[in-house]
Amino acid sequence: MTVELISVGTEILLGNIVNTNAAYLAEQCAGLGLSCFYQTVVGDNEGRLAQTLQTALGRADIVILSGGLGPTQDDLTKETAAKVLGRELRMDAHSRERIQEFFNRRKMQPTDNNWKQAMVPEGAIVIDNDNGTAPGIIIEAADKRVILLPGPPGELIPMFETAIRPYLSEAEPGVIYSQTVKLCGIGESKAETIAADLIASQENPTIAPYAKTGEVHLRVTARASVEKEARKLVKPVVKELKNRFGMNVYTTDENVTLEQAVVDLLLANRLTVTTAESCTGGLLSARLTNVPGVSEVFKSGHVTYSNKAKHKLLGVKKPSLDKHGAVSESVAKEMAKGAAVSSKADVAVAVTGIAGPDGGSVVKPVGLVYIACSVRGKVKVKEYNFSGNRSRIRESSVTAALTLMRQCILEYYSEVTFR
Amino acid sequence: MTVELISVGTEILLGNIVNTNAAYLAEQCAGLGLSCFYQTVVGDNEGRLAQTLQTALGRADIVILSGGLGPTQDDLTKETAAKVLGRELRMDAHSRERIQEFFNRRKMQPTDNNWKQAMVPEGAIVIDNDNGTAPGIIIEAADKRVILLPGPPGELIPMFETAIRPYLSEAEPGVIYSQTVKLCGIGESKAETIAADLIASQENPTIAPYAKTGEVHLRVTARASVEKEARKLVKPVVKELKNRFGMNVYTTDENVTLEQAVVDLLLANRLTVTTAESCTGGLLSARLTNVPGVSEVFKSGHVTYSNKAKHKLLGVKKPSLDKHGAVSESVAKEMAKGAAVSSKADVAVAVTGIAGPDGGSVVKPVGLVYIACSVRGKVKVKEYNFSGNRSRIRESSVTAALTLMRQCILEYYSEVTFR
Repeated sequence: MTVELISVGTEILLGNIVNTNAAYLAEQCAGLGLSCFYQTVVGDNEGRLAQTLQTALGRADIVILSGGLGPTQDDLTKETAAKVLGRELRMDAHSRERIQEFFNRRKMQPTDNNWKQAMVPEGAIVIDNDNGTAPGIIIEAADKRVILLPGPPGELIPMFETAIRPYLSEAEPGVIYSQTVKLCGIGESKAETIAADLIASQENPTIAPYAKTGEVHLRVTARASVEKEARKLVKPVVKELKNRFGMNVYTTDENVTLEQAVVDLLLANRLTVTTAESCTGGLLSARLTNVPGVSEVFKSGHVTYSNKAKHKLLGVKKPSLDKHGAVSESVAKEMAKGAAVSSKADVAVAVTGIAGPDGGSVVKPVGLVYIACSVRGKVKVKEYNFSGNRSRIRESSVTAALTLMRQCILEYYSEVTFR
Repeated sequence: MTVELISVGTEILLGNIVNTNAAYLAEQCAGLGLSCFYQTVVGDNEGRLAQTLQTALGRADIVILSGGLGPTQDDLTKETAAKVLGRELRMDAHSRERIQEFFNRRKMQPTDNNWKQAMVPEGAIVIDNDNGTAPGIIIEAADKRVILLPGPPGELIPMFETAIRPYLSEAEPGVIYSQTVKLCGIGESKAETIAADLIASQENPTIAPYAKTGEVHLRVTARASVEKEARKLVKPVVKELKNRFGMNVYTTDENVTLEQAVVDLLLANRLTVTTAESCTGGLLSARLTNVPGVSEVFKSGHVTYSNKAKHKLLGVKKPSLDKHGAVSESVAKEMAKGAAVSSKADVAVAVTGIAGPDGGSVVKPVGLVYIACSVRGKVKVKEYNFSGNRSRIRESSVTAALTLMRQCILEYYSEVTFR
């Protein structure tokens, strides 16, 4: 079955907001095995919206519209869809009651235009909105289905999860199952080369590579009549990818981030950790501490921006700073060692570099970063040359630091050696 | 003049990436005074792309396509556009040379399919790509203009700024001029209430409010035949908004962020600063240090996640931790004082709270955060109750900390007192 998405809203046409609803709905529909060939954005204009809906109905089985269900005169998605499908709008007593309750709970009075939201096209399926006043609506007409969802993501997403996904699962027999092999410490082109024959030859499952800052994700997707069958198709391909990429695979779990994988490794080995950051200015500790439960292993971190702070807080020797400069292999090493000593942490990672836009030179250009990691006194240091603006260089540095931490911990506990 | 946007890419249809290019281009076009009524996303499919382009040409003066200019067989935006407009593709010597140079600089060899990127529709204007190998292309056909841009934002945005914006400015006589009044320390609904009559009554310029995490931006936009005229329309409205919002206005400069405003205030008053973070785990120092030139005022920061670290690094008294708990007004104050002493900084800001998902209780729920700010020994502490997930609570805390820093510095140097 095919689906088409129509996002209604002048604020999207003006570029005031990014259309994250379309990305969410597209991903969900793909996961349900529905093929989507078009997404359209159109403003709150009856003529253009009606025409867009008619075009979509001419080429798709299911049309999902989001936005324009609000209480104001501008909001006319429901009115337009009802007109296009030849349905009258009728007051829905259940929705009216829910709107009244919504306002009662907040000790507020509904305004007259709120009741507009309880008007529903005749014969439609009404979907309760647990997070707002506009109910969702499904209109089934001959072999077509039109689904109307509220625009705010905080209303649209829960409504999709609880009511629309189950409804669409029944509409489209067969499932799509995906698993992602997440890689770190390897470039996109190298990863693609290693998997090129698999990517080219696979039809079901397919393998799609996605590059993130400092990471590569390979998504393996299979289509089958039942999930068990789809999983069976995915399994050997994931296994083969794991074989080929070995230690570069940090997880095959969709929900695990690189920082989560590093924290899991620390927890599993009962290692405490500390950070010493110069150019990243706290971004590395911020990313580590975004993992719930990190307090078991992370006690403190240091942001040592000035040379004085590097000396005073981490014990970096003044001659090292004078001779090699703050952005050097030696200082990175001393920062890591000093942080480990001062925090009594098992693992210490230090980042020093030039994030720009100023501060670069011919010998030490913007983007030059040194990262050192110490695991129980065993220190490894690496030089990196990142490109992009200040934010990009800082983010690349953090991902590289997490990757190096993971490598050093794995090397400490095994015979493995990374490039 | 009207413009229509077509984003080409299966990865957008599958929801693998969010279509930020469309938001960027839409905002830019609106700023140039071009009206956009439709945005469409279509996959890398010749038939569907050709049909979409034809439809767009039927209703808009300018069509901007992004994506599908890569070197592979999948990339067929240029080929399809050339076919729809009846143009032959020819090898462009200049583009070929630039591609060769691009690879030379990286000491890499181009592959055969890279030369496909140097093929250009006859009679087209070629736009150099300084960040990749696919040139941009403008095709002028009768009264229509078709613009082809590369998909990666790192290539599309610089190309738009340097070449496409100037080109479109000439196409559309008349200008749009915007200025943004950025507010902190005030909620969205309160800000809207204060400006309600202005928002309702203004037609040229218009006032549009946008809520960001912990901030409200009011964008004032005027349309006129020349920029000078548009600026003249905007000026009194910005002045009125500044009068109404007083000290809540932290800037009217589009490029100044809240952290930049805080750093500017520190620089102007020759104040050094330090941070002491618990629940934000380095996010506050990371945001401050993303401001270029911050090293003049920021020397070091502390991430004190454990009670032990709060005691050892910041001198927080054990009885305070035992009696009030780590998330308390007293501990926030002691953290700020301790950080100021240990770093010898003029300004110290401390954040302690419960970011969740675990660690909350009835008395101290998830989202409870205390922020203290000390300016040369004068300490102020505030309690906050944020909602949302872990990331959201941490981000809200950082914005609140920046807002409090700004307030405390301003209060220190003036008679002003904030709520």
